[in-house]
Amino acid sequence: MATLITLLTDFGDADSYVGEVKGVLLSQVHGAALVDITHQVPPGDVRAAQYILSRVWHRFPQGSVHLAVVDPGVGTDRRVLAASTAGHFFVAPDNGLLSFLPADAHFVGLPVPEGAAPTFQARDVFAPVAGQLALGAPLSRVGHPVADVCRSPLPAPHHDGTVLVGEVVYVDRFGTLISNLPGDEVEPGVRIKVGGTEIGTLSHTFGDVPRGALVAFVGSGGTVEIAVRDGSAARLLGVGVGAEVRA
Amino acid sequence: MATLITLLTDFGDADSYVGEVKGVLLSQVHGAALVDITHQVPPGDVRAAQYILSRVWHRFPQGSVHLAVVDPGVGTDRRVLAASTAGHFFVAPDNGLLSFLPADAHFVGLPVPEGAAPTFQARDVFAPVAGQLALGAPLSRVGHPVADVCRSPLPAPHHDGTVLVGEVVYVDRFGTLISNLPGDEVEPGVRIKVGGTEIGTLSHTFGDVPRGALVAFVGSGGTVEIAVRDGSAARLLGVGVGAEVRA
Amino acid sequence: MATLITLLTDFGDADSYVGEVKGVLLSQVHGAALVDITHQVPPGDVRAAQYILSRVWHRFPQGSVHLAVVDPGVGTDRRVLAASTAGHFFVAPDNGLLSFLPADAHFVGLPVPEGAAPTFQARDVFAPVAGQLALGAPLSRVGHPVADVCRSPLPAPHHDGTVLVGEVVYVDRFGTLISNLPGDEVEPGVRIKVGGTEIGTLSHTFGDVPRGALVAFVGSGGTVEIAVRDGSAARLLGVGVGAEVRA
Repeated sequence: MATLITLLTDFGDADSYVGEVKGVLLSQVHGAALVDITHQVPPGDVRAAQYILSRVWHRFPQGSVHLAVVDPGVGTDRRVLAASTAGHFFVAPDNGLLSFLPADAHFVGLPVPEGAAPTFQARDVFAPVAGQLALGAPLSRVGHPVADVCRSPLPAPHHDGTVLVGEVVYVDRFGTLISNLPGDEVEPGVRIKVGGTEIGTLSHTFGDVPRGALVAFVGSGGTVEIAVRDGSAARLLGVGVGAEVRA
Repeated sequence: MATLITLLTDFGDADSYVGEVKGVLLSQVHGAALVDITHQVPPGDVRAAQYILSRVWHRFPQGSVHLAVVDPGVGTDRRVLAASTAGHFFVAPDNGLLSFLPADAHFVGLPVPEGAAPTFQARDVFAPVAGQLALGAPLSRVGHPVADVCRSPLPAPHHDGTVLVGEVVYVDRFGTLISNLPGDEVEPGVRIKVGGTEIGTLSHTFGDVPRGALVAFVGSGGTVEIAVRDGSAARLLGVGVGAEVRA
Repeated sequence: MATLITLLTDFGDADSYVGEVKGVLLSQVHGAALVDITHQVPPGDVRAAQYILSRVWHRFPQGSVHLAVVDPGVGTDRRVLAASTAGHFFVAPDNGLLSFLPADAHFVGLPVPEGAAPTFQARDVFAPVAGQLALGAPLSRVGHPVADVCRSPLPAPHHDGTVLVGEVVYVDRFGTLISNLPGDEVEPGVRIKVGGTEIGTLSHTFGDVPRGALVAFVGSGGTVEIAVRDGSAARLLGVGVGAEVRA
């Protein structure tokens, strides 16, 4: 079986960095299948990285290793983590990126080898460990258990009387505003508001409104999204991550 | 043999969407080789998607499955198609994207499983069928035959007296204007005109003109292209898709 | 073993070109593993391509084939080269892109097959040879030896009295200025200057300065880099490739 390693970074795809990491992985793990989740996370945006990885990892088969490096603290003494849950493995900085993992996930802290470039630990620290895990090394062999990992979960919605109040947690390429309001907690007929603008009740999909119109629906991640058909809700409403969403 | 699945979408490469689709494919088809054609089709530009896929698919080995999702009608009742021709397989929305396939290609309409996210059928409808085809399922097992598929072929050139008249069908990253005039139908010595500007007769390649100069030649897709050496014809001439080209 | 072919071009990732090249490679080399180094080299920027490939190739396992096409002279009579060194293979235009290879690397000039599109030799000339090399063909079978390859190495630093003088050779996505000054030739305590601005002495990493501050350190490629923590040194200093760096 080809071992599967996914990669998620903020390195972009123009420089040598992703290629260097892939070279290290392929030199270590013969025939590994590498899958780019994205390298376009906005530089240092740990929250966006967390959101994306939380949506993607469980789509891959068990045994996959997920290497996620959005790491504004590279070279400081923040820890490097490896983790496992549900048959999946993760390697990431200890900055909250893995906060979506369940409470009973196993975490270890990784040693930094002498000679590792302090500004490129993805290549010299993270990738070699991802390679070891892909080759079947148990978590206990790559690091020492840690209990106090940094947890910085995405914001959760709350109730204001009977109103469910949350916020936009991600804006996608199409300008669709993705909120943290679970679709199955929104009562039928309730009107959705974003940053003060009323969108109307939940529709099924884009096709339910004319081109250029605002629409709210339960998105593919299970939460309420606000979109413009063939357009950008972020641009039309002038709001982004953090904007209040009420239902 | 590693089964080969190509992907062409307008999802961009910054969000979770391509990763989710790949996770579904790799969970279903053990060891599949995934090849990104592009995810940078302008949002909803079915015509650009058609042009790109028409150039690429036949370069891949027989047995390849081509998953193409540029789908402004996602969630409406437009059909989802699978098709086969010349030993290749295709999965795409029924919006004209596959118009380049020959008249005798086989098409089936796909059922939409209950629970599929109406805004992300690439993940929940298209990808599972691409996976089945990659695993060897015959077309007849994944859907029911349809005869009236949407055909919206790229425009064809016509004659105006002795002049061949066509148009720009695609503009590439370099600003080169790719027309639909077949190179082998242009008589030697005929002068090429784009949107009223005379370019001159057909050259062999960029190297035949000085830097910054306009040049027309038969491009790598077999049709007449208009370019600027080390520059952009689209910017210099201020024209794009749809501009008239005469030869 | 899956044969490994890396790709580096300036084709971007929006058009059909990379897909066409990959189709040719996968049709020829059953089960090849293709790795994109980058397709975002600025159009025609042979120097950037050289810098990136020089950093990446040796991270991959022996036997890898590196296909590098940044080729403003496509279609002219500049030669196409294949080369080998240290168990790695390269296919690239003879325009200086491979100048980083050692003096004792072997080079051959490749024939251009009749019918090759003069504007897309990557698909019709370079890729088929990369495929042959990946299948194990010796260099001597794909071309004829050439001794006078174009060498256009990246600039080397020199001494001005006791001062080491070099220049910025690359600017990465983060706006970090990468110089050609070897880190191990900079004496401790020496102050770094870029284009007249004094940066201070070498730090270890970003974490040694506050957010928004300039910092110089020995980068992951072994040379002096100038960066802004969580910002862009290129933007802050208003300099780029070619700017003088003194240490």
